[in-house]
Amino acid sequence: MNTLLLRGGRPWIPGLPTDVADIRIADGRIERIGPDLESTADEIIDLAGALVLPGLVDTHCHLDKTMFGGPWIPNTGGRTLSGRIANGAGRRVELGLPSAEYAANLLGAMVSGGTTAVRSHIDIDPEVGLGGVAAVRAAAAEHSDRVDVELVAFPQGGLLSRPGTAELMAAALAEGVEVVGGLDPAGYDRDPVGQLNVIFGLAERYGAKIDIHLHDGGTLGAWEFDLIVERTRATGLAGRVTISHAYAMGSLAPDEQRRVAENLSEAGVSMVTCAVGEAPVVPVRIMHDVGATLALGNDGIRDLWTPYGDGDMLRRINNVAYRDRLVADPEIELALLAGTYGGARVLGLDDYGLTVGAPADLLVVEAPTPAAAVVVLPPRKLVLKRGRIVVRDGVLVTDK
Amino acid sequence: MNTLLLRGGRPWIPGLPTDVADIRIADGRIERIGPDLESTADEIIDLAGALVLPGLVDTHCHLDKTMFGGPWIPNTGGRTLSGRIANGAGRRVELGLPSAEYAANLLGAMVSGGTTAVRSHIDIDPEVGLGGVAAVRAAAAEHSDRVDVELVAFPQGGLLSRPGTAELMAAALAEGVEVVGGLDPAGYDRDPVGQLNVIFGLAERYGAKIDIHLHDGGTLGAWEFDLIVERTRATGLAGRVTISHAYAMGSLAPDEQRRVAENLSEAGVSMVTCAVGEAPVVPVRIMHDVGATLALGNDGIRDLWTPYGDGDMLRRINNVAYRDRLVADPEIELALLAGTYGGARVLGLDDYGLTVGAPADLLVVEAPTPAAAVVVLPPRKLVLKRGRIVVRDGVLVTDK
Repeated sequence: MNTLLLRGGRPWIPGLPTDVADIRIADGRIERIGPDLESTADEIIDLAGALVLPGLVDTHCHLDKTMFGGPWIPNTGGRTLSGRIANGAGRRVELGLPSAEYAANLLGAMVSGGTTAVRSHIDIDPEVGLGGVAAVRAAAAEHSDRVDVELVAFPQGGLLSRPGTAELMAAALAEGVEVVGGLDPAGYDRDPVGQLNVIFGLAERYGAKIDIHLHDGGTLGAWEFDLIVERTRATGLAGRVTISHAYAMGSLAPDEQRRVAENLSEAGVSMVTCAVGEAPVVPVRIMHDVGATLALGNDGIRDLWTPYGDGDMLRRINNVAYRDRLVADPEIELALLAGTYGGARVLGLDDYGLTVGAPADLLVVEAPTPAAAVVVLPPRKLVLKRGRIVVRDGVLVTDK
Repeated sequence: MNTLLLRGGRPWIPGLPTDVADIRIADGRIERIGPDLESTADEIIDLAGALVLPGLVDTHCHLDKTMFGGPWIPNTGGRTLSGRIANGAGRRVELGLPSAEYAANLLGAMVSGGTTAVRSHIDIDPEVGLGGVAAVRAAAAEHSDRVDVELVAFPQGGLLSRPGTAELMAAALAEGVEVVGGLDPAGYDRDPVGQLNVIFGLAERYGAKIDIHLHDGGTLGAWEFDLIVERTRATGLAGRVTISHAYAMGSLAPDEQRRVAENLSEAGVSMVTCAVGEAPVVPVRIMHDVGATLALGNDGIRDLWTPYGDGDMLRRINNVAYRDRLVADPEIELALLAGTYGGARVLGLDDYGLTVGAPADLLVVEAPTPAAAVVVLPPRKLVLKRGRIVVRDGVLVTDK
């Protein structure tokens, strides 16, 4: 049995003070947490009061689209959704996308920042077919000891409006892709019930989870929230359905936001917010107040949609907290909660966190409080994946 | 005569391609820019194709409020303007503010990021008096060879609504503070004409510039834009009046934004935007299209208003570009333009920029294009102030 003792760190266990405690890891899992554990282990690391956080969870990215680590490509996508979709598909081939190499570059950067689990949407359409699945799987295989990657079969070019896409998504799910995606059932596909029929049908047939991009704003988007909630209740898929972006939340009055969040909570539908550009952020405090699951993600990074992004999930948590005007420590911790435990719930990681029995996925930073870690963005001293050190001082450990 | 040759960099001169050129500096000023200048100088530095940008200009910060470099202070300000004002004034003494030491820490971080000129608002009220002016002047003196600091006498606690403040502001201006500040003439002071009477009166009496914080949103804020424009025309203060934040711009339709921007341009009134939290960003493209001056700033950094911020002006330019959804290279360059030449116009730096005769205030980064520098945020290889190297590889040069 391989054992590791992290001595004298301050583990963040939500709701408790970050008192000094040792963490004993055996065969990749947390065996004990407590003060002054016995000092017998194959390896002992003195954390000297550093903060220990559970591994960060990026629940929304697009690894198949990224050009991370490649040359600078001036963006030509413009600002409309349809323009960016057309630009993304139109220039893919010319730029060698999807690329396993770029996806691996980005995964490496994500891990360096402390991310230990990722959900990536993968464009599926009749032109690219399942090429994105293959590329991202190759990248994930390269980093399989460092990060877990879950895939979404995502109809970026439309589902009903793009014949042949549903069949390809079914093929992706049949060969193991875990999540079926959707895209603006009303605003883009123009047939909300029709798109949900296909998505929920695929989810039931393949035992897949669901993650729907919902950019539709205002009353249209809010109406679609209800439609998805109702369908989730009807199909018994509680805990397995996510609405990504959910921009319409931003146009609702606080009492309406609360009503939506309560419905989400009761139906077991989660939301993912990314604080992209000027787009509204799902209100972190309201989601938490009513017990609804909120998770965070980086969204597109250095791709044909956006030139921005670096893959650092702690910085993304910072962005969300900053955009949502979370300023007091307990409020900022709610954003950290969303970027860790919230993400784990969306991904269905049952034994996640700094808790006995869970895989030792964690990061170590110098910070006086969890909120300070989010604000100050200190260097990542250590990142562990299943008890193995994968990052030291922000640098990927590459010798296996 | 002291001479320095920066060889083989790619200076960014807006509107021109960033071709390789040498920059010859004599006695702190740019003497020549061009390819293959003669290689005689006291010092020669090979820039090997790195990008050269003019020094960044932070036109809106609060050096007197910062606790930068101090211990983590959990924020207690809350989210309302009045609550944050009360918290800021109420906890000042307990925390040793205003502090020359913290202000100097922050100025050092700003310089390390490539900032060479700063405008800082300084709270003036009957409790703190001119203590903030003294503290920030001491900090600025410590960094006088690295960065120029201009001060605003700022009535953070109200002007008409806080008796004694106007007299203290007059005293600050009399002893050399360069700018007279204002705060929500309608929303906070409840007497917009009355506050403008005092501000413009002080400006005329002391030959000061004007910089008004305008958080008021919607039609109220938009109406105040007009009021300030009219008053600027009437007093002949074109080029010397700035509206900071200008959140009301965000609630206007694009054609209304354009009308306001045209009025600003004609009247010589500038705007400063900071992309703070969820607050609206002044539209960068519209301001540029009509020739109105837009500048950027970090606003509060690690203070009683906000725990966030690091003083890196290039990151702030990135934030503004990201929030304003500037994605194409020429659009992103407009944000860089605002964070450099726009800021210089607000500060009245007549001989600013990468141009012959100007003081050699510049920074050097490895980036393929100016837009890429904004997006990628590369390390600052060199920062020069008046021809003197003040930062190498992101680290302040401290031996004089």
